[in-house]
Amino acid sequence: MGKEFLYTEIANGIASQIKNGILKAGDKLPSVRMLCHEHRISMNTAKRVFLELESQSLIESKPQSGYFVSPFFSIKLPLPDVSRPSLIANNDEPDELISKVYENMGKKGLTIFSISIPSGDLLPQAKLKKEIVNATRELKEGGTEYEELQGNLKLRRMIALRSLPWGGNFNENDLVTTNGGMNALSFCLMALGKPGDTIAIESPCYPGILQLANGLGLKVLELPTHPTTGIEIEALKKMIPEINICLLIPNYNSPLGSCMPDENKKEVVKLLAENKIPLIEDDVYGDLYFGPSRPKCCKSFDKEGNVLYCSSISKTLAPGYRVGWIAPGKYKDKILKLKLLHSTSSISLVNEAVANFLKTGKYEKHLQQLRRTLQSNYQNYVQTIAESFPEGTKTGRPQGGLSLWVEFDKKIDTRILYDLAIKQNISIAPGRMFTLQDQFENCMRLCIGLPWSEVTQTKLRQIGSLAKMI
Amino acid sequence: MGKEFLYTEIANGIASQIKNGILKAGDKLPSVRMLCHEHRISMNTAKRVFLELESQSLIESKPQSGYFVSPFFSIKLPLPDVSRPSLIANNDEPDELISKVYENMGKKGLTIFSISIPSGDLLPQAKLKKEIVNATRELKEGGTEYEELQGNLKLRRMIALRSLPWGGNFNENDLVTTNGGMNALSFCLMALGKPGDTIAIESPCYPGILQLANGLGLKVLELPTHPTTGIEIEALKKMIPEINICLLIPNYNSPLGSCMPDENKKEVVKLLAENKIPLIEDDVYGDLYFGPSRPKCCKSFDKEGNVLYCSSISKTLAPGYRVGWIAPGKYKDKILKLKLLHSTSSISLVNEAVANFLKTGKYEKHLQQLRRTLQSNYQNYVQTIAESFPEGTKTGRPQGGLSLWVEFDKKIDTRILYDLAIKQNISIAPGRMFTLQDQFENCMRLCIGLPWSEVTQTKLRQIGSLAKMI
Repeated sequence: MGKEFLYTEIANGIASQIKNGILKAGDKLPSVRMLCHEHRISMNTAKRVFLELESQSLIESKPQSGYFVSPFFSIKLPLPDVSRPSLIANNDEPDELISKVYENMGKKGLTIFSISIPSGDLLPQAKLKKEIVNATRELKEGGTEYEELQGNLKLRRMIALRSLPWGGNFNENDLVTTNGGMNALSFCLMALGKPGDTIAIESPCYPGILQLANGLGLKVLELPTHPTTGIEIEALKKMIPEINICLLIPNYNSPLGSCMPDENKKEVVKLLAENKIPLIEDDVYGDLYFGPSRPKCCKSFDKEGNVLYCSSISKTLAPGYRVGWIAPGKYKDKILKLKLLHSTSSISLVNEAVANFLKTGKYEKHLQQLRRTLQSNYQNYVQTIAESFPEGTKTGRPQGGLSLWVEFDKKIDTRILYDLAIKQNISIAPGRMFTLQDQFENCMRLCIGLPWSEVTQTKLRQIGSLAKMI
Repeated sequence: MGKEFLYTEIANGIASQIKNGILKAGDKLPSVRMLCHEHRISMNTAKRVFLELESQSLIESKPQSGYFVSPFFSIKLPLPDVSRPSLIANNDEPDELISKVYENMGKKGLTIFSISIPSGDLLPQAKLKKEIVNATRELKEGGTEYEELQGNLKLRRMIALRSLPWGGNFNENDLVTTNGGMNALSFCLMALGKPGDTIAIESPCYPGILQLANGLGLKVLELPTHPTTGIEIEALKKMIPEINICLLIPNYNSPLGSCMPDENKKEVVKLLAENKIPLIEDDVYGDLYFGPSRPKCCKSFDKEGNVLYCSSISKTLAPGYRVGWIAPGKYKDKILKLKLLHSTSSISLVNEAVANFLKTGKYEKHLQQLRRTLQSNYQNYVQTIAESFPEGTKTGRPQGGLSLWVEFDKKIDTRILYDLAIKQNISIAPGRMFTLQDQFENCMRLCIGLPWSEVTQTKLRQIGSLAKMI
């Protein structure tokens, strides 16, 4: 335990020096011997420090010379601009575009950069199968019975327990399970909104949220959003009188990759509570942090039950299991009634299986591995983009999650790029999908949850070549 | 095969003579020898005929005398009246009563007559477990992936195939899977209704439907309904100008037990189509027929895609699996979009498992057994009610399904009966749950899906004793 802790701690220290630019690309690191001396650790522990940093693609070894800061890591493309959507609610839904993208996903042999879920290869499928088999054995009536309305107690306990270290601010009784994250958001919007109400969201925004809000007859107000720090609080303040509901993806936003700093989260929660505007928080990416620790959530700062916290395992473990949850604060009764009426109960089997998977600690191990892969993917993506995309390409700088937001020069329309790419069996998500207005036509979202391989790299390069042709 | 067919045919012939009153309670049946001679069958086949009739509680043997028509079967209590709800849309939701009934269901040691699902003891749990285990092995990515939006293809094929003999009138491409039957109804209502629209339903009506419609802001128009033939077509005709949507449970309605004759189904479908009023048909009980064959559904007569047919396996196989479906006719695109936005996809694992269970024919065998049990339960219930309930008690005469509707004398308020019964660990469903108006206060619904045992019988008798005290 002590040893484990020590090498991680030292590695994290060096990692943050690299990330903060104190150590720069090509800088030589101290030798193994020097590290032993400096930290009074064994040769083995010192070696593990370097292995850890290497696995994160932060350093590389050169034969007979030692370890150096990786040149890849330092690659940073310019940031996309802060979005400037019209502040008049709009509802020009890119229905046809979205349908086309979704329908084409069924094509065989397609490399899918257009959906923000981790590839099946990155999921612990064998272990999950075992948990399902165990659940059929352990559950009363083999899972054929209705589950209690609020959801599997063991699962709710595990979710609450896991959230303690990062200030989830809810316990098992505060949670209601749902059939995945979208189902959670759908219940929240149905509980809070009536046709004609205005909902404030980030811009760009996940298409499912845009369509859901539109489908429920809500007016959608897209707000200026910063590519790294998320929604612009000044804009939110200004528009407060027009807003009935606010919905945010504060951590590792899809598509933008932004992550709201804690002080922003705190301020937004306070501002909305003061104005009696409920906040729906979608935290499905929160566990996918690249840094040393998980970010807090808005719910962490919620004193009045005004935040409806939603999450799921769809982005981290098993999209097809449809296991999600809400900590609905003071709206719990409304959410429970909606759940009863619209879906009766969750599916015991998958919820029990996931509960057990969380309980044994297998989830934490899996997440560690997945985070490492995603971070390394991110770096590989950026490097490839820097090498092969048109000049002037900008990218987000996600510190976690599954999405990389790419902004081309104004003249490159990603709807055209989409059509070119799909002919080469590549699917991207054009920027216009993420707004109800005429913007982001030169942007796209790439999923970094594909296993990094020669195919992935080649396909990514192809996107660059195609973009250059437009 | 030939033999199997023969003894069933002969048994069905005798059964229908009993049911039609040609053979009466106490009548002596021909001897085994006579039956052999009459039908030119073997002794063994003749014996199986009697065993079959005995298992259905239609006949009983007396030592050294032979077989006689069972005195139990002939018991028929008077039918409840045709309902006469106010024809002004009402929304006096019995919220507190419903909450109380649902919350109390968590009590340990409770005998639950108040929920219309088959008891776990009547379900093929071991076989289902095996199918789940197989599904984890056979599914691509072990079921962790999103399923295609329309739902598991094998399951849709099996549902369509099973519906051929009784005129389901849909194929695999017409079907969309959902998370259970309520989820199917919820999608249909969201697709068709907007706040302020009027929905016509049977009266009494399943509480989930009342609450769902109310929750979506629909005006609920309860129509007069006959205890055996269902909704009164004349009343429906009269109210047509006020109706935007119609929702019916034509087969073995819960709570009433009514089953619309084919000609009524046909007429209603035509009437609604002519007036461009979509019909949502809830057929979750259709497979639970006591007679020789499954009834048709309204969808069988739908020429214009105006009927949205909904069903599930929750009442027949595994409530907790949440496997349901819609054949939405011309509303398919709307339903698919709602499914995408509100739940993303169904859960592959349970859908694959159920598809395989259906494919192997295990489902048909299970249904045969379940139907026999329910029919025999129904007869046992009626007999016990006749013996121990207050004079003047009326009951429905379901020809299938899970619900027995009981009407007491006007002076007996079943809300009071509920409170008395729950103290004795018995849960019933008071009639007021099934309406948004002030009616059915002297009625209740009993589930006949409990295994018949001394406990069940004793508890049923206790309800009668308590009712006599009011």
